[in-house]
Amino acid sequence: MDEHQLSKILSSIRPLNAEAMNAARERVNRLTKPLGSLGMLEEIAIQVAGITGNPTPSTQKKAVVVFAADHGVTRQGVSLYPKEVTAQMVLNFVKGGAAISVLSKHCGARLLVVDVGVAADLPEHDGLLIRKVAWGTGDISCEPAMSMRQALDAISVGVEAVKMLVEDGAQIIAIGDMGIGNTTPSSAITAVLTGKQAREVTGRGTGLDDERYMHKVAVVEAALNFHRPDPNDPLDVLSKVGGLEIAALVGAVIACGLMRIPVIVDGFITTAAAAIAFSMQPLLKDYMFAGHISPEPGHRVLLDFIGLRPILSLNMRLGEGTGAVLAMHIIDAACQLLSRMATFDEAGVSGPIL
Amino acid sequence: MDEHQLSKILSSIRPLNAEAMNAARERVNRLTKPLGSLGMLEEIAIQVAGITGNPTPSTQKKAVVVFAADHGVTRQGVSLYPKEVTAQMVLNFVKGGAAISVLSKHCGARLLVVDVGVAADLPEHDGLLIRKVAWGTGDISCEPAMSMRQALDAISVGVEAVKMLVEDGAQIIAIGDMGIGNTTPSSAITAVLTGKQAREVTGRGTGLDDERYMHKVAVVEAALNFHRPDPNDPLDVLSKVGGLEIAALVGAVIACGLMRIPVIVDGFITTAAAAIAFSMQPLLKDYMFAGHISPEPGHRVLLDFIGLRPILSLNMRLGEGTGAVLAMHIIDAACQLLSRMATFDEAGVSGPIL
Repeated sequence: MDEHQLSKILSSIRPLNAEAMNAARERVNRLTKPLGSLGMLEEIAIQVAGITGNPTPSTQKKAVVVFAADHGVTRQGVSLYPKEVTAQMVLNFVKGGAAISVLSKHCGARLLVVDVGVAADLPEHDGLLIRKVAWGTGDISCEPAMSMRQALDAISVGVEAVKMLVEDGAQIIAIGDMGIGNTTPSSAITAVLTGKQAREVTGRGTGLDDERYMHKVAVVEAALNFHRPDPNDPLDVLSKVGGLEIAALVGAVIACGLMRIPVIVDGFITTAAAAIAFSMQPLLKDYMFAGHISPEPGHRVLLDFIGLRPILSLNMRLGEGTGAVLAMHIIDAACQLLSRMATFDEAGVSGPIL
Repeated sequence: MDEHQLSKILSSIRPLNAEAMNAARERVNRLTKPLGSLGMLEEIAIQVAGITGNPTPSTQKKAVVVFAADHGVTRQGVSLYPKEVTAQMVLNFVKGGAAISVLSKHCGARLLVVDVGVAADLPEHDGLLIRKVAWGTGDISCEPAMSMRQALDAISVGVEAVKMLVEDGAQIIAIGDMGIGNTTPSSAITAVLTGKQAREVTGRGTGLDDERYMHKVAVVEAALNFHRPDPNDPLDVLSKVGGLEIAALVGAVIACGLMRIPVIVDGFITTAAAAIAFSMQPLLKDYMFAGHISPEPGHRVLLDFIGLRPILSLNMRLGEGTGAVLAMHIIDAACQLLSRMATFDEAGVSGPIL
């Protein structure tokens, strides 16, 4: 994919289907419950109707796609864990031992893990797609994360993965990330897109102490000062201070918009990717659900920037798509209520008297 | 059951199992994720370990029990819907057309509906247990809801229903309510137990306008002035200004504590019942999860009174157990993570370096 093709894809994204939304809303109001009493579930179901163009949409066939890559900036000591953990966790994902493995199974979702830039050779494994664009990114504090070519290639990987899942039947997609050090580029992206200071959008990641946290803020500031990315050029931001898995996540969000599939954004890293995609094409916001809100301070900033309201607030800060896949059960519940509940007429239940 | 037997049951409730909680906490900290990164899910899993006495508890066998009854106070015009809707909705529950029917199936939970005081003869139906203590309550604005004998009988119905479900294999129980008019007694209970004014704990129920809302507050005030229930005698509060389904819900909560089963409280009405049970035996709090928080103003007051933190906040105000059953998926997810995730050692994943 080149820049021209990306623009073409972005400009082919359409608004939600208003007719399907009206039909869904009208049905919601005839179901056997007080008006509005299902709260956010009603809005969710109506949005999925608009996304899919179906007034009684199904989201039963679920998929989770997790993109993994390494980050050169780990050499600055911004994470509590060694970068080898990225590759180790990818294997843990596909072998069933990680949180996202357990939660995907619990939710009845297929799990696909995509190596888009892990700095290690990974063995072939069921559920693992190897699409390495590079062996990790450059150190964003003093060099670009990747070339424009690599950014576009990683975006293509995201598009390809979603297309594969949708062609295989997926009706809803949760997105997740794995990459030791990836809260640092996410903070840099957040600062650029929202105009906030590094310290306002940098958190403790996997659990840094005060000293390491101050150092991390300084690293984010160094990256911003070194690159001065153009907030009006999201691809520029992505390639200079982003990550390979973040670029693939941008592609995944774009593909969901293109294929009219609801996409559930997870925590800070996936939301940074969603914010890049949103900056490229604001209509993509309507295809997104925010699965949850994490305690990373930049996450709230990004959700507000895009205009998303999180479904869950459970103080989770693990990534991997864990918050998104938990929310998937709730989105599916909303769609099932819309399709399967009886109306007042069907059930012979009396309406309001007052 | 008489008052003496109830006291005996209440005094046989034990604290959580500290040993199982310590073992669960120790395991949580060895799982392949940053320390504490599963947030509230970690606390939930550890609490279930304490409830069940099992460091890796299972909550896969799920049940929802909904108690239904009518309310004499509906003659005061406190609800938007006619009281016939209670019986109509009970049939809708068991026939699969109601929100709780759809959500129970979605979550993989058995649904049991118990008629503890519906003011209509209900036909026999699979999933419906007829245990009518009375044909609805008295009008609490000018007479007792029920006699002490009826309150105790309804509590027994709740105990019996939970015992039946647990003997049938249920490992976790969500509780729900159906009863046109039942936010009015719930507001009265809340005012008595917490010392708040009627207007602070009375909401719009299924959707009253301003005028009807003011009238409802006046009805709650009339009930409080007429009965002056003793806040230190929860059974007195229950029988004077409660409801038959509320009494059965009190019994269900007590039975869960007795049988060491996690119980998920739903919205305003079930939480009013949980608050009565908590007032009878404070240890019961540790057996409870608050499934969600509803916009009824008294709900937050009750959750604070008991000391519960809601799992979901989706602006739902339907009752029936709908918020509780959605949260059940999350509690089960927490328990599955505790039992099924790999530890750092098992997965060969490196630990922190800093």
